[in-house]
Amino acid sequence: MQFQALTEADVEVLTQAITASDRLYVKGIQEVGAAVRTASGAIFSAIHFETSTGFANVCGEVAAICVMVAAGRRDLETVAAVWRSPTGEHFLLPPCGRCREVISDFNPQARIILSSRPNHWDADAIRFPVIVLVEELLPLKSNHLKV
Amino acid sequence: MQFQALTEADVEVLTQAITASDRLYVKGIQEVGAAVRTASGAIFSAIHFETSTGFANVCGEVAAICVMVAAGRRDLETVAAVWRSPTGEHFLLPPCGRCREVISDFNPQARIILSSRPNHWDADAIRFPVIVLVEELLPLKSNHLKV
Amino acid sequence: MQFQALTEADVEVLTQAITASDRLYVKGIQEVGAAVRTASGAIFSAIHFETSTGFANVCGEVAAICVMVAAGRRDLETVAAVWRSPTGEHFLLPPCGRCREVISDFNPQARIILSSRPNHWDADAIRFPVIVLVEELLPLKSNHLKV
Amino acid sequence: MQFQALTEADVEVLTQAITASDRLYVKGIQEVGAAVRTASGAIFSAIHFETSTGFANVCGEVAAICVMVAAGRRDLETVAAVWRSPTGEHFLLPPCGRCREVISDFNPQARIILSSRPNHWDADAIRFPVIVLVEELLPLKSNHLKV
Repeated sequence: MQFQALTEADVEVLTQAITASDRLYVKGIQEVGAAVRTASGAIFSAIHFETSTGFANVCGEVAAICVMVAAGRRDLETVAAVWRSPTGEHFLLPPCGRCREVISDFNPQARIILSSRPNHWDADAIRFPVIVLVEELLPLKSNHLKV
Repeated sequence: MQFQALTEADVEVLTQAITASDRLYVKGIQEVGAAVRTASGAIFSAIHFETSTGFANVCGEVAAICVMVAAGRRDLETVAAVWRSPTGEHFLLPPCGRCREVISDFNPQARIILSSRPNHWDADAIRFPVIVLVEELLPLKSNHLKV
Repeated sequence: MQFQALTEADVEVLTQAITASDRLYVKGIQEVGAAVRTASGAIFSAIHFETSTGFANVCGEVAAICVMVAAGRRDLETVAAVWRSPTGEHFLLPPCGRCREVISDFNPQARIILSSRPNHWDADAIRFPVIVLVEELLPLKSNHLKV
Repeated sequence: MQFQALTEADVEVLTQAITASDRLYVKGIQEVGAAVRTASGAIFSAIHFETSTGFANVCGEVAAICVMVAAGRRDLETVAAVWRSPTGEHFLLPPCGRCREVISDFNPQARIILSSRPNHWDADAIRFPVIVLVEELLPLKSNHLKV
């Protein structure tokens, strides 16, 4: 897996994901903040939410993409998602399989911010962010969106 | 099923769903505009999007709720979703089973705008909107969110 | 909502759902047994399973339908789903919104076994089973399968 | 990505996935056959099915896992999924992101049968099957099942 260094613009995406996880936090219901940046430089943030039926839960990344799309954009470039613990710590999460599908539908070269540490649950893992392309997180993706 | 008449505020929700379906339309990918109003009177609109794997598609109602939640609100009150056809006609859609679960998690008495006509695919069905409570669209819901 | 009495064949479906919930029980992972009967009288049973990402959980009803379809059948007629508690009690569950969509795709007149008691979490609610058509549990369903 | 050669037992899994895709084929509704083998050598096959709401579609791999679980097994070892075209050709499909999550919940070292050809849509790609571990298809998986 190829790790790239964050640019200043990437740091801003990460910062906004952290901020969203704090601002919109509802314990047990809204805990994963996310932010996305478009190729044109716009940033959108949102938060995940739980439902009473697990299958309907919406991940932070998908929620942020909904906000981006509602603003008329599809040129997704960079994504970050951060889980805020009940005690206020932050953890940089790799996207789940569904989010990898959604993100790569928008852009197979979308850049994902995640930790370079072997275990992203370590307390300081978020202090070592790197960039990975979503296509490396979902190799041999079989379906592609026909726009 | 109990149908109620729309208030002026409801008409505004419907209008914004229609507007979103036009403004954000991308053929085959983004076709169902939606709008939600909170108890405090804020309105949020968004559009659905298709993915390459059907299971990851996001409905218009869920997208609009993501925008509402990202704005720090959970007091969902009224919902409308409108499919825009490739030729520019509009159809008022009842929510799918997943959306009924999500909407009723936020508010079991949430008000859904749909057509009183027997067939919502009729060309003029959208001209006869009424309000139905989501609990009437998902009777005997078995799961409830524990906030 | 119209409640109908169970036939002897329906009782057998319920019995097999209960049996599946006991036989296949894995605490926290596999707890909701389900059984379906086809128009031709074949019965198939299965159990739900949890995943690490809630969105990928599979309900008991869907699992039983997978078994039915794998046996070459689509003529779904009757459905029952039973949650077995860690202490071995059984509760008859109404289907979630997603299951209502799936079941009604196979047959809008599919017969669902649920409790006639106001609260299906009551200890003895399962002793009062009745039949309800899925179309009453998902009124104004907007999507229909084109086979 | 590490490709391994198929064993004779693997060839049997692939053969059963192909057979399922033929035996259970319903055009537009049931087209992706799948088979799974457990560590103990049992093989289960099934077919995917489409629903009227894309989010409720069930992939072939998940359907086959439902059959396996209904038979009282969780020791998933090998997986194959084959799309049968309307004209009777077969294509070996890599699992989608959701299936990668589900499969790796059962066994992070589960073995996936896919084509070694760069494009699995090539007419003869299925003639070059190899084994890849699911953990290579979902690197940095963030959620793990707590059984």
